[in-house]
Amino acid sequence: MRNIGLVVSYDGTQYNGFQSQSFRNTIQDKLQEAIGMLTGETVKVTGSGRTDAGVHARGQVVNFHTASRIPIEKWQLALNSRLPDDIVIRQAVELPETFHARKGAVSKTYRYTINNSRVPDVFRRRYQLFHHAPLNVDRMAEGLRHLVGEHDFTSFCSRKTEKQSYVRTLFDARIETESSGGADAAAGRDADGRCGVIHIFVTGSGFLYNMVRIIVGTLIEVGEGKRTPDDMLRILQARDRLAAGPTAPAHGLCLWEVVYPDWPVPPVY
Amino acid sequence: MRNIGLVVSYDGTQYNGFQSQSFRNTIQDKLQEAIGMLTGETVKVTGSGRTDAGVHARGQVVNFHTASRIPIEKWQLALNSRLPDDIVIRQAVELPETFHARKGAVSKTYRYTINNSRVPDVFRRRYQLFHHAPLNVDRMAEGLRHLVGEHDFTSFCSRKTEKQSYVRTLFDARIETESSGGADAAAGRDADGRCGVIHIFVTGSGFLYNMVRIIVGTLIEVGEGKRTPDDMLRILQARDRLAAGPTAPAHGLCLWEVVYPDWPVPPVY
Repeated sequence: MRNIGLVVSYDGTQYNGFQSQSFRNTIQDKLQEAIGMLTGETVKVTGSGRTDAGVHARGQVVNFHTASRIPIEKWQLALNSRLPDDIVIRQAVELPETFHARKGAVSKTYRYTINNSRVPDVFRRRYQLFHHAPLNVDRMAEGLRHLVGEHDFTSFCSRKTEKQSYVRTLFDARIETESSGGADAAAGRDADGRCGVIHIFVTGSGFLYNMVRIIVGTLIEVGEGKRTPDDMLRILQARDRLAAGPTAPAHGLCLWEVVYPDWPVPPVY
Repeated sequence: MRNIGLVVSYDGTQYNGFQSQSFRNTIQDKLQEAIGMLTGETVKVTGSGRTDAGVHARGQVVNFHTASRIPIEKWQLALNSRLPDDIVIRQAVELPETFHARKGAVSKTYRYTINNSRVPDVFRRRYQLFHHAPLNVDRMAEGLRHLVGEHDFTSFCSRKTEKQSYVRTLFDARIETESSGGADAAAGRDADGRCGVIHIFVTGSGFLYNMVRIIVGTLIEVGEGKRTPDDMLRILQARDRLAAGPTAPAHGLCLWEVVYPDWPVPPVY
């Protein structure tokens, strides 16, 4: 059996998340159907992890085993022609038999995008949270930095899950801003103090359920001045979901990148 | 009566174009309905021009007359809260009684976007034409320059229309490329010679029916090497639609900007 890996981008707007469900309206189902059409086999695709309903991916990674003899360079186009428009294979590679997309991942990066402007951007509305009230991005960045490192993230985890451990390590967390293009674009703010489009990148070994969305929901309250940057430390220490802010909406979140030590070639985006 | 002007962005994917139709699934209908909800009046909105089904706008401009006393600074948010997600008012201004969005426009810019890559971009697929075969963007730019100036554009007009004159003036026409981000990004090309995302900007006093889309469809043939850049001159001289290439699809086209000598403030995008 061969072991084939795929880098997959998807617009999650229309899907009930990554993981297969009885309705079959998931990314995993669509990938398995396309592979089935191509090979005639019934395959099970393993993802680097789940994404929730409405969450997007630039660089989700999956692997699956197949007896097909189709040459590796044919897979990408062959699968793309059998997938819906909103799921695209960016790379297909031949992998060692032992490669496992979930167990083998050493780091994952998520990006959350907020459009802090007077009016929404019609062309990116499906991929960014529109937030009308001015946000102080410097304070948000200061608050975010408190989360880097190894911490118990119980406060930033939805209660649905029962985990052995809520300790996770964030390798990196940072905010990037786009020029707003407005009158005060040099300062990155409009006349009312709005900071334009901001991207929150969070990189870690693993993430708890809704962890990035709760971090972002809490940071928005820091940006609005309802909490201080140092509150992020106190929230960590509380180990209580009720200490943190709300869960930010799914559509601003994107699984940006998954890193493996043994991926054979540079991933393509 | 007051005369109010709006700068409007829309994602045209779901609409049957700008101009009102009996089905009411047009941009004009949605604007008129929102204004009606707000003022209680039945108004007729005048656009700078029509856009076809599936064509987008960053900066469409419309005006309408109203007896409403709502202060001008309230209109933008009040209308946005009554419009669907894919139509956004970017600016509302008070205009002289004589202002007319179609007759007063001195120049219009359209942008057509082509993604010349190995695979589509899922997040921008609704706003760009995906083109897999490599395009020579330098040759396309050379061909495009032949169209700048005053010409009879009969060859670049769909035959449906009966016009008094097919002479139009292009003030400017240029191509901008985005870095492809690939291995050969410095040269703007991937290993197979694809040029990544390109934006074709065309500015003129006015445009014939399907003119930009036929120009783009013909330039793609130049980029593929099926025609030479100088063929653009010969096509102009032929004054025959059959001399030009196919009409490029609607979804890559965006009405970028409309310029008026008497617009009271800088337009907001």
